Amino acid sequence: MQGKTLGELASHVGGRIHGNADLIIVSAGTLDKAGPSDITFFSNRKYESQLKTTTAGAVILAAQADTPASQLIVEDPYYAFMQIVVLLHGHREHKKIGVSPSASIAPSAVLGADCHIHPFVTLSDGVRVGDRCIFYPGVFIGPGVQIGDDCIFYANAVVYDDCRIGNRVILQANATVGEDGFGFSTHKGIHHKIPQVGRVVLEDDVEIGAGCGIERGTLDDTVIAKGTKVGDMVTIGHGTKVGPHCLLVPQVGVAGSVTLGHHCVLGGQVGVVGHIKIGNLVNIGAQAGVIGNVPDGSIIVGSPAIDANKARRAYALIADLPEMRKTIRLLQRQIGELEGKEDLNK
Amino acid sequence: MQGKTLGELASHVGGRIHGNADLIIVSAGTLDKAGPSDITFFSNRKYESQLKTTTAGAVILAAQADTPASQLIVEDPYYAFMQIVVLLHGHREHKKIGVSPSASIAPSAVLGADCHIHPFVTLSDGVRVGDRCIFYPGVFIGPGVQIGDDCIFYANAVVYDDCRIGNRVILQANATVGEDGFGFSTHKGIHHKIPQVGRVVLEDDVEIGAGCGIERGTLDDTVIAKGTKVGDMVTIGHGTKVGPHCLLVPQVGVAGSVTLGHHCVLGGQVGVVGHIKIGNLVNIGAQAGVIGNVPDGSIIVGSPAIDANKARRAYALIADLPEMRKTIRLLQRQIGELEGKEDLNK
Amino acid sequence: MQGKTLGELASHVGGRIHGNADLIIVSAGTLDKAGPSDITFFSNRKYESQLKTTTAGAVILAAQADTPASQLIVEDPYYAFMQIVVLLHGHREHKKIGVSPSASIAPSAVLGADCHIHPFVTLSDGVRVGDRCIFYPGVFIGPGVQIGDDCIFYANAVVYDDCRIGNRVILQANATVGEDGFGFSTHKGIHHKIPQVGRVVLEDDVEIGAGCGIERGTLDDTVIAKGTKVGDMVTIGHGTKVGPHCLLVPQVGVAGSVTLGHHCVLGGQVGVVGHIKIGNLVNIGAQAGVIGNVPDGSIIVGSPAIDANKARRAYALIADLPEMRKTIRLLQRQIGELEGKEDLNK
Repeated sequence: MQGKTLGELASHVGGRIHGNADLIIVSAGTLDKAGPSDITFFSNRKYESQLKTTTAGAVILAAQADTPASQLIVEDPYYAFMQIVVLLHGHREHKKIGVSPSASIAPSAVLGADCHIHPFVTLSDGVRVGDRCIFYPGVFIGPGVQIGDDCIFYANAVVYDDCRIGNRVILQANATVGEDGFGFSTHKGIHHKIPQVGRVVLEDDVEIGAGCGIERGTLDDTVIAKGTKVGDMVTIGHGTKVGPHCLLVPQVGVAGSVTLGHHCVLGGQVGVVGHIKIGNLVNIGAQAGVIGNVPDGSIIVGSPAIDANKARRAYALIADLPEMRKTIRLLQRQIGELEGKEDLNK
Repeated sequence: MQGKTLGELASHVGGRIHGNADLIIVSAGTLDKAGPSDITFFSNRKYESQLKTTTAGAVILAAQADTPASQLIVEDPYYAFMQIVVLLHGHREHKKIGVSPSASIAPSAVLGADCHIHPFVTLSDGVRVGDRCIFYPGVFIGPGVQIGDDCIFYANAVVYDDCRIGNRVILQANATVGEDGFGFSTHKGIHHKIPQVGRVVLEDDVEIGAGCGIERGTLDDTVIAKGTKVGDMVTIGHGTKVGPHCLLVPQVGVAGSVTLGHHCVLGGQVGVVGHIKIGNLVNIGAQAGVIGNVPDGSIIVGSPAIDANKARRAYALIADLPEMRKTIRLLQRQIGELEGKEDLNK
Repeated sequence: MQGKTLGELASHVGGRIHGNADLIIVSAGTLDKAGPSDITFFSNRKYESQLKTTTAGAVILAAQADTPASQLIVEDPYYAFMQIVVLLHGHREHKKIGVSPSASIAPSAVLGADCHIHPFVTLSDGVRVGDRCIFYPGVFIGPGVQIGDDCIFYANAVVYDDCRIGNRVILQANATVGEDGFGFSTHKGIHHKIPQVGRVVLEDDVEIGAGCGIERGTLDDTVIAKGTKVGDMVTIGHGTKVGPHCLLVPQVGVAGSVTLGHHCVLGGQVGVVGHIKIGNLVNIGAQAGVIGNVPDGSIIVGSPAIDANKARRAYALIADLPEMRKTIRLLQRQIGELEGKEDLNK
């Protein structure tokens, strides 16, 4: 690693420097671990005390502060930090191996230019892949799948038949896209499998985490719209439409036939029941259980999920329930006594 | 696709027609998206308004209703719908590829007739597979596993040593069956692994979702009885017995040594603690936490799970806790004042 | 199986016998299913009634009890049971297949002595593997990964680039280690991927369950310290440090930048928010939601998680909320009447 001066970094991200512009920065680190040739960032108040004691050479932050590090002051520190990490470290580099003779590629599959297909990858009949895609070992692409340009599918990711994948889509390892939706018709106690005729559509710039399962639709497609990022072990039910630019944190479960708007954030382990509509810019706290439609801009938490302001006080009061009941019983006794005296007063 | 007349569909499912029996139906669609040559169904009240405005050629439903579509009236609309989707679209067709030379098949493995084994599949020593099974790429079958007829294992599904798999079992992609149970003996602060000597038994017509983990038993087998369907990312603990014809919705977690009866339905993200007994025909709402035995026929929700009728009101009242506490404090003040006056009355 | 006398088992585990020391024990079984040549154990009070009716030849327990079985009395029955299961049944045996010609091994990868590498395994550039490691089919090891001795990676487990794996580490099937952390910088509505420069470090004797996802760190490593056992489908966020000898039961989710102490136990489906510190010897009940720092030795349950003693009563009272509100309303009426009479008394 060669490093950049803090001045170069500042002009790269459009910030101003308070401190030593000639400082050579070699890599990025956390506030508590960064050394004199590292740059770090400050955006979470929780770490304010570390700002004063950091041994980092430089820190990215939104406003000048009390810190021994040279300061790179920008409007959006986390965004500037991302740009600098990309500049200093880059994204993962993928070995240019071409198309491995140990891959299993159907004669009817069509590959774009400069694709890198590792051993033990399967491309089934009628698969179409765009340019510059990278498929790691064990990736399986079912018949008729169409994939755009610049996709990266990590080891053992699976895409079932006929799904549609946009450009720059990332599948982390062991992710599954397009498995059968959980659709059964129960008749006289027997669950009959309903053919899942729909597909999964992943639009441009979608990322799917390790171990996810994105069910194909029963009739309609399941859609994850552009720019949405999905964490590990998330499950999306059949026919659900996730809007663009959402963040679905690990272990979220969304049932079938749900509609989510754009820029929603679902915290870890959130569950959403089927057949509801969640608006735009909705923020759902970790472990919440959503059981009804949610208007645009809502911030909700809890199971069942309610308005966050209300919920934080309400759910915290669960701990006080024993005390509350004790008080109620005391009140009952007091009132009983008062009523007795009242009768005597008559 | 060639299509069928609505009359043909009606006789296929044993229903009667209100409308045009000669209408040609080509495919199935949802109430809001189906077109004039599509058939749809109505069984969820939520979509009642769409029934009046649907552009579908025909709709399957339980009783004559106000809709522009021709009506196919049957006792169980969702079951008839399933039959018609199967008729019009069929289940997924699997390419007849025979046994790939790129599969790794132990000399002692025995394959039935008409099996289709894709590249990169492993069948270990002593594996026995019935007739007409289909194993997609990356499937791993451990030593001594026995598998019935007509099974479909999707890409990268894994079955550990000695497990027993019935007929018509489906494993979705990246599912794991028979991994070691989470069994450790903690002695002087060290967790010692207990050999997991039991197996997993999947009976006939079981389906296991993508990314599931079904632990083998410590001593006893883990059993999933016939006809039970398991959604994505479900985990079943060691030695647990899931009864026949259950539905375990995605992300359910059942700990070890649990017994479930027949025809239970566990909603998404339900958790069940170990060493308990859940009766027959039990219905457990999404995200519930079950911490004790459950009698036959119970409908429970919440964490901790309680009777659903009670729970729906009780859990909804959490939102009212701040108001309730305010009222209690007001009552305390009022009673204090009354008691003061009472003293004055003396 | 040849069997051992109960006397031999007693001296193996350092226990004393009440009953027949010459009894031949062939295998281990559960209290309710063990037969006359089986040994079982008793440590969970729940099964006390089965102790009196067991048909087992022998039972391991902590104190002499009323049972028809011969008794092997030891201080820690479950630990003795583990030792005896290992003695009678042993751990899984792995076929000695050497290095398969159907594996894909980079010329620069270095393998220790007596490794067994199955078909369709990938070892990328610069991988170093210690002695006696076993990699099942479909395992993928990314560039630069270093692995100690005596590791067992089951089918389709994946380790991303540059991760560090200690000795005796077990990865169950379809586990993912080192996928990108869920790290994005959101700027003007677009989520920009932050290169995840950290690694995952799994120390000695760690076990990772089927279908897990252990995210690599953004800058710092994600660390799972020695002796910690992780159940199926657990997700660990980027940069989190899990201390030694913890137990993380299936479906636990720990967000990023969390620090856990040693000997913590996290029950099934527990969720932990990011950027907090959990002390040593902390016990967290199933489905709990942890949203703040937790001191050493705490036992907490509930979502939000609170002290377990308090929580068990508090969360159980949710079921009484409708009754409590009814009582409060009644009290309001009674007080209203009393105040009315009080006014009349004036």
